[in-house]
Amino acid sequence: MGSVDPVAPELVAKIFSALYVRQQASRVQWKNAQCNPYCVVEERPLSVVVRHPNYFTSLPGEYYTSPQIFEQEKEKVFKRKWLYVAHVSQVREPGDYVTVRAALESLIVTRDRNGAVRAYFNVCRHRGSQICDELSTGKAKAFVCPYHRWSYGLDGSLLAAPAMRNGEDFDYPEFGLQEAHCEVFYGSIYVWLGKEPEMSLRDQLSGGGMFPINDEKLSSIEPERVKMIHENRHIAKANWKIVMENNIECYHCASGHPDIAVVADLENFYYERGDDGELVACGVDSSFGLKEDVKTYSMDGERVCKKRLGNLADGDSFVWADMVMWSSHPHFCDYSQKMIVHPISVDTSEIVLQWFVHEDAVEGVDYEVKDVIALFSAVAEQDYVFVERQQRGVSSDRYIPGPNHSLRETDMEAALLDYIKLMEA
Amino acid sequence: MGSVDPVAPELVAKIFSALYVRQQASRVQWKNAQCNPYCVVEERPLSVVVRHPNYFTSLPGEYYTSPQIFEQEKEKVFKRKWLYVAHVSQVREPGDYVTVRAALESLIVTRDRNGAVRAYFNVCRHRGSQICDELSTGKAKAFVCPYHRWSYGLDGSLLAAPAMRNGEDFDYPEFGLQEAHCEVFYGSIYVWLGKEPEMSLRDQLSGGGMFPINDEKLSSIEPERVKMIHENRHIAKANWKIVMENNIECYHCASGHPDIAVVADLENFYYERGDDGELVACGVDSSFGLKEDVKTYSMDGERVCKKRLGNLADGDSFVWADMVMWSSHPHFCDYSQKMIVHPISVDTSEIVLQWFVHEDAVEGVDYEVKDVIALFSAVAEQDYVFVERQQRGVSSDRYIPGPNHSLRETDMEAALLDYIKLMEA
Amino acid sequence: MGSVDPVAPELVAKIFSALYVRQQASRVQWKNAQCNPYCVVEERPLSVVVRHPNYFTSLPGEYYTSPQIFEQEKEKVFKRKWLYVAHVSQVREPGDYVTVRAALESLIVTRDRNGAVRAYFNVCRHRGSQICDELSTGKAKAFVCPYHRWSYGLDGSLLAAPAMRNGEDFDYPEFGLQEAHCEVFYGSIYVWLGKEPEMSLRDQLSGGGMFPINDEKLSSIEPERVKMIHENRHIAKANWKIVMENNIECYHCASGHPDIAVVADLENFYYERGDDGELVACGVDSSFGLKEDVKTYSMDGERVCKKRLGNLADGDSFVWADMVMWSSHPHFCDYSQKMIVHPISVDTSEIVLQWFVHEDAVEGVDYEVKDVIALFSAVAEQDYVFVERQQRGVSSDRYIPGPNHSLRETDMEAALLDYIKLMEA
Repeated sequence: MGSVDPVAPELVAKIFSALYVRQQASRVQWKNAQCNPYCVVEERPLSVVVRHPNYFTSLPGEYYTSPQIFEQEKEKVFKRKWLYVAHVSQVREPGDYVTVRAALESLIVTRDRNGAVRAYFNVCRHRGSQICDELSTGKAKAFVCPYHRWSYGLDGSLLAAPAMRNGEDFDYPEFGLQEAHCEVFYGSIYVWLGKEPEMSLRDQLSGGGMFPINDEKLSSIEPERVKMIHENRHIAKANWKIVMENNIECYHCASGHPDIAVVADLENFYYERGDDGELVACGVDSSFGLKEDVKTYSMDGERVCKKRLGNLADGDSFVWADMVMWSSHPHFCDYSQKMIVHPISVDTSEIVLQWFVHEDAVEGVDYEVKDVIALFSAVAEQDYVFVERQQRGVSSDRYIPGPNHSLRETDMEAALLDYIKLMEA
Repeated sequence: MGSVDPVAPELVAKIFSALYVRQQASRVQWKNAQCNPYCVVEERPLSVVVRHPNYFTSLPGEYYTSPQIFEQEKEKVFKRKWLYVAHVSQVREPGDYVTVRAALESLIVTRDRNGAVRAYFNVCRHRGSQICDELSTGKAKAFVCPYHRWSYGLDGSLLAAPAMRNGEDFDYPEFGLQEAHCEVFYGSIYVWLGKEPEMSLRDQLSGGGMFPINDEKLSSIEPERVKMIHENRHIAKANWKIVMENNIECYHCASGHPDIAVVADLENFYYERGDDGELVACGVDSSFGLKEDVKTYSMDGERVCKKRLGNLADGDSFVWADMVMWSSHPHFCDYSQKMIVHPISVDTSEIVLQWFVHEDAVEGVDYEVKDVIALFSAVAEQDYVFVERQQRGVSSDRYIPGPNHSLRETDMEAALLDYIKLMEA
Repeated sequence: MGSVDPVAPELVAKIFSALYVRQQASRVQWKNAQCNPYCVVEERPLSVVVRHPNYFTSLPGEYYTSPQIFEQEKEKVFKRKWLYVAHVSQVREPGDYVTVRAALESLIVTRDRNGAVRAYFNVCRHRGSQICDELSTGKAKAFVCPYHRWSYGLDGSLLAAPAMRNGEDFDYPEFGLQEAHCEVFYGSIYVWLGKEPEMSLRDQLSGGGMFPINDEKLSSIEPERVKMIHENRHIAKANWKIVMENNIECYHCASGHPDIAVVADLENFYYERGDDGELVACGVDSSFGLKEDVKTYSMDGERVCKKRLGNLADGDSFVWADMVMWSSHPHFCDYSQKMIVHPISVDTSEIVLQWFVHEDAVEGVDYEVKDVIALFSAVAEQDYVFVERQQRGVSSDRYIPGPNHSLRETDMEAALLDYIKLMEA
């Protein structure tokens, strides 16, 4: 685990000082208790959290339960990552729009008259009313707030405020819709909620260059030439980081997801270390580890759509994922899928699943929705239970982060260290 | 807008300093951004909020979303206005009572043996149990707490505490019900939740003398000679001030309330300015702006009750309203209506609508309830949607108060400045 | 009331200073108000709360409504009392387990291979997932976390963490389940959530020796030889101390619980004072005050189970109760009952009722569940209403603690003073 470290021990020490102080207070009573995990804390204050000499752990309970920490995350984390919000197929033509959630914000994603994808905060510049219904879609010539009929162009500019004259009552150009930075990666639209992006989307997806992006492979898949056939939204009573951790690791797959075990070679989900002890990275260029003879990620391993994604062969797969503010983007030979987690409150998250097939595929002829969504739907239902029971557990006063598996929960460490960096910045 | 100002710029500056500081922190990044509303803030910190040189605005988002500000309002606002709670027709005879909400309090409004209207806090002096069921009505000889049977007279005095003797266990006279100050204005009962009223009810209703009360007109209407025929209570997920603003202005009526457009001459809802630029005030002596040939505020403009309120002619109307802690009291030739907003929490309010007809009107003969309530019920349903979508919008981190209409949202400015004065006091 | 006092007046003064300061601020306005309870506060600041020269009261409103005070209680109160969680009949054999709530924690209560009753925090040492479903029961050879299949022995030791080797990845012995201190009193299992018990369970039950435990009587009842036949769980919107007070006193029984009046000699519920003015204590050795000719605590006073508890005669009864963190344990000739209150949040509590009959009794032959549970079920339904209306009442800004009955609400005083001592420690 040595060389991945971008976090100084002092920072880790500081972030967990509250936990430490609380434990110090009870030093005497606990000193000689048998099998006492608190003793470990006293002697090696940094070691029980995240980076222990022999293993790494998850975060202290406060990070999953404290409203104050959630409040800090709003500025320090949610606004400092590119967030996946929609696919270009949802806004093919100028005026097509989809109202999406991005962390705690509602955004109108649309395509302007020049063909550019734009993302506007769904907030009228008059008195702040939401302009479009949340999670609505449509085709618009202008966005008209239903409250007082202020209208905005596809480029976000204020077109008209009834009975208020541009240049007289106020200057229209100062009151266009506020816009989120927007970038598109092979058809996937991402936004940056903060003021200025601290990195490019490609930088984020390549882990700052550690995982080079395989453009050749991506081009051959044509991930932009798909259409969404189903969406599933679920509110889970769990902190968003618990949902993120659940999705990052597959240590729980063997016992927790029997349907995955049918199609996936679970050993391939995990990292290996080379002879030099270094991790064999997967990053943005990973396969999803299907078993031999399995064609796609379905209940029986058989294909669920007749149209192929680009030139992906049976059994081939390709996935990229966003750490910290989690989304994942697996592609199989016949369909692709997206999973996104939105923080709602410290103990509540929204989990969104989307399924895509080739844009030319015809329902009833090439695919049935129920077949395409079957496996990930079943897995998601199982995970909803896991994350909620973990949330209840870490709310216990006696929860202490324990050892995570260095090869089967590997990516969690990088994600958590990245999270700590953001929180400490 | 010049002469209405009772708020010094320094106060406005102070109240919004938190917003300002937050924005200052990002000065460099935003400095040269195109069409950047934040720039305005930096250069003219006071102008973007409430009193801009060219317009006024609503409040910053915190005022609609922060639990801390709601906490401050409890003392600074809710207890410092006369609040409409009931109509005298609900407590005609000694012992008649109605349990009402007044902001966050539950009160028992009754008539004592001397015929005086009284309002008691619905809290037993023993261990604090509510004495009467919330929102109940009835006729009582005494108020008996169902928990331990402590009983109180219509004058609030403790009559008996089972097995506890006056003067021995404790002195009964020290433990009468706590009473709210109570005043009646042409049949409408108001309470003051704070300790000593800072103004009389007539002072509040006349805006400190700016809008003289038209006693001649009011006497002719006989607003006290009505009876309630229907009440509608609705919990909206919106801050109480958003509900207040929604009800103060009719800028949204043309597009938002098609049924109002049928009967109302919407231009008459708005203020005009005289040749000197001063507002033509309407205040407590306003008509409701019915179109010519329209007799009352109903779906088709035809009367909905055969009995007339006082000597109000067809098409005539009269309304008074309470700013800040909002209630409105429109009277038409054949019915009157009341709308009250109760704060519940920072993002939740209760909206109460009440309908009244002449006390001698007979249901089924003179009126049908469904006809009387049709228009205001429809309007209220539309407004519930507006206030909730505004609440979601102002919860965005990117909400900035924008320009309000100087003639169509006029009263909002006075109400918001009055609110700021209370909060700053 | 003199000699029971373990609380110095200074402590009482301090704890209520916030209330006092708030009231001081309005001294002038209130000074001469007629019948003004606030005046009392100013002149005798300590006397209106808890220990007044002539009476005692309940706590100020903040203690029932402030999230900050609830937060303090977590450490100062909930972890510093023995809490009843289960009966030995629920874990008769090694491996039998029941997952219970104890204040805010979830615990697995089980019997290990040596026959000892153990209580483990229901939190996996890996990433904190709850191991057993909340409120589940079963028979286990090991406790296996469903998330990643970490497994624990009946003694709490970590047996296996899949793919992680003991001594290599980490040391298993350091990661056994955390355990709560556990003691059994005549079949009733209690836990101590804090680190080291500050007293023994017998000390707690005997009130530090003030109420000697009647072991002869208890042995004759054989309270451990019963089985649970029904459990009722209810969430009430009331602070846990309001539920505690409701259960401690029977001043409300005459009017509030008509069914109790049928079977109970209500005068016997109350304390008496001897010639010396001292209370005649009942404590852990009390009867439940059945009327003459009444055999048991049932709707008609007739027995509801043919099997007798130990040698308890018709009409005989015996109860012990835990103050502050409330549970009560009444035993009648033919059944026993338990009532437990769990704090959930500042204004929400869970009330649990359990009914037991002799372990050899046969349903349908010796008893019908509906008859055994009828009386306490009816009483509980009535109390749910009382506690919720008191919670609403004490949330009023005008609630002031009033005089409690020195003989009919007596135990409340000791409980509240004990509570204050814990909070001040």
